[in-house]
Amino acid sequence: MPQIAPSPTAAVLIIGDEILSGRTRDTNLNTLARFLAPLGVDLMEARVVGDRQDQIVGALNALRAAHDYVFTTGGIGPTHDDITADAVGAAFGVPVSEHPEALAILARRYAPGEFNAARRRMARVPDGGVLIANPVSGAPGFQVENVFVMAGVPKIMEAMLDDVAPRLKTGVPVHSRSLRVAGVGEGAVADILRAAAEARPHLSFGSYPFGFSVDQTPGQVGTHLVIRGRDSAEVNAAEHDLVANLRSAGIEIAAT
Amino acid sequence: MPQIAPSPTAAVLIIGDEILSGRTRDTNLNTLARFLAPLGVDLMEARVVGDRQDQIVGALNALRAAHDYVFTTGGIGPTHDDITADAVGAAFGVPVSEHPEALAILARRYAPGEFNAARRRMARVPDGGVLIANPVSGAPGFQVENVFVMAGVPKIMEAMLDDVAPRLKTGVPVHSRSLRVAGVGEGAVADILRAAAEARPHLSFGSYPFGFSVDQTPGQVGTHLVIRGRDSAEVNAAEHDLVANLRSAGIEIAAT
Repeated sequence: MPQIAPSPTAAVLIIGDEILSGRTRDTNLNTLARFLAPLGVDLMEARVVGDRQDQIVGALNALRAAHDYVFTTGGIGPTHDDITADAVGAAFGVPVSEHPEALAILARRYAPGEFNAARRRMARVPDGGVLIANPVSGAPGFQVENVFVMAGVPKIMEAMLDDVAPRLKTGVPVHSRSLRVAGVGEGAVADILRAAAEARPHLSFGSYPFGFSVDQTPGQVGTHLVIRGRDSAEVNAAEHDLVANLRSAGIEIAAT
Repeated sequence: MPQIAPSPTAAVLIIGDEILSGRTRDTNLNTLARFLAPLGVDLMEARVVGDRQDQIVGALNALRAAHDYVFTTGGIGPTHDDITADAVGAAFGVPVSEHPEALAILARRYAPGEFNAARRRMARVPDGGVLIANPVSGAPGFQVENVFVMAGVPKIMEAMLDDVAPRLKTGVPVHSRSLRVAGVGEGAVADILRAAAEARPHLSFGSYPFGFSVDQTPGQVGTHLVIRGRDSAEVNAAEHDLVANLRSAGIEIAAT
């Protein structure tokens, strides 16, 4: 087993009453997870909080102390319920003021009569913050130390990641293999999977059932087995052994 | 403003490496949010952690101390990576053992040769736990004090809520009204919305842009305005006033 340097760790903080009320189904966590995985940055945890400064400050200070990076989404628009910039300033103990470059970006974006006080609010950044480009709607995000503050609108958040990626230390990406066994429940493969996991403690082995429905009929259900690890040769070897052991038990792998 | 008793508060804890790796997009948070809202239970925060006992115990102990209810999803299946029952036992400081009723349910579900040691694991419940019925696949969830431990598979989690609902204290449900203004960005309604929020501090006013795309064309974008509060008469009055103030500014409400 080669020595592998520790990978950077990350957390996500999703900000917005609309997620907790059920009005909006968050998709940004999954987008961020899929963005970080190939960079070798380990997403360790996520939190969802409402539009309340005490909640945002508490969660942000816990997460930024525990991880190399924190990515926040939501609360950077022009309306009174957009309080993320102030909350991030409070978390870092720095004032929030109009960022000249952000102001210039916004002034170019809006006609003179449209660039009102509410829209100027989107230029407010905690002191020391570095802008994150927003190619969709102009109003930038910002980075303060290890915290990346991004929009909640999924298309805008995703577009901001182009400007975030080059700023991250990367790690060794995790390789993953997925095996699909149809017509076989998790309980039928559990012993084989446990033995595989015990034989290769550097890898992680997951098991995810599929096909459940309230009026299920036999044969519909099955299991996805997922092998994950940083050493691709070891992941490949584990897949080879797992397939052989499943076949010895009479369990065939289906096309994924 | 009538005096309203405080509503119960809740948190959600989503457990599973597959959410943080990006393999699976969580939908259970949204399902739980929409389940709790009409019961008048305030969902205050959510966390997502991996399949690690220290993470689960830390998050669960923080959340169960801070809220009336905690709802967990994931990690109660038969495989080695299903560690939620042990983690919940560790969080409460109680042993985990085979629950006779859970064992009976599982024994009925499987043919004798199929009811193996892995599947017996699904009968393990922290001492003092009360089962939560699983009408989809048999293996029950469980409740320990104010913590409801449910499956990660969305169809199973959702079906378990039928058995959870009668156990909850309820509060006064939040009423919400949504107004759609097309062709008008958030910045154009921000002042009117802020004034509305300042005039009615018992209500919450949210603003959510829609229609952003990378190659956006003018007129596509717009804003949803959401008014929320427990007093339906006040929510209705706020909606009436907001519509009037938007119209005075030349902004028409579109059909939602």
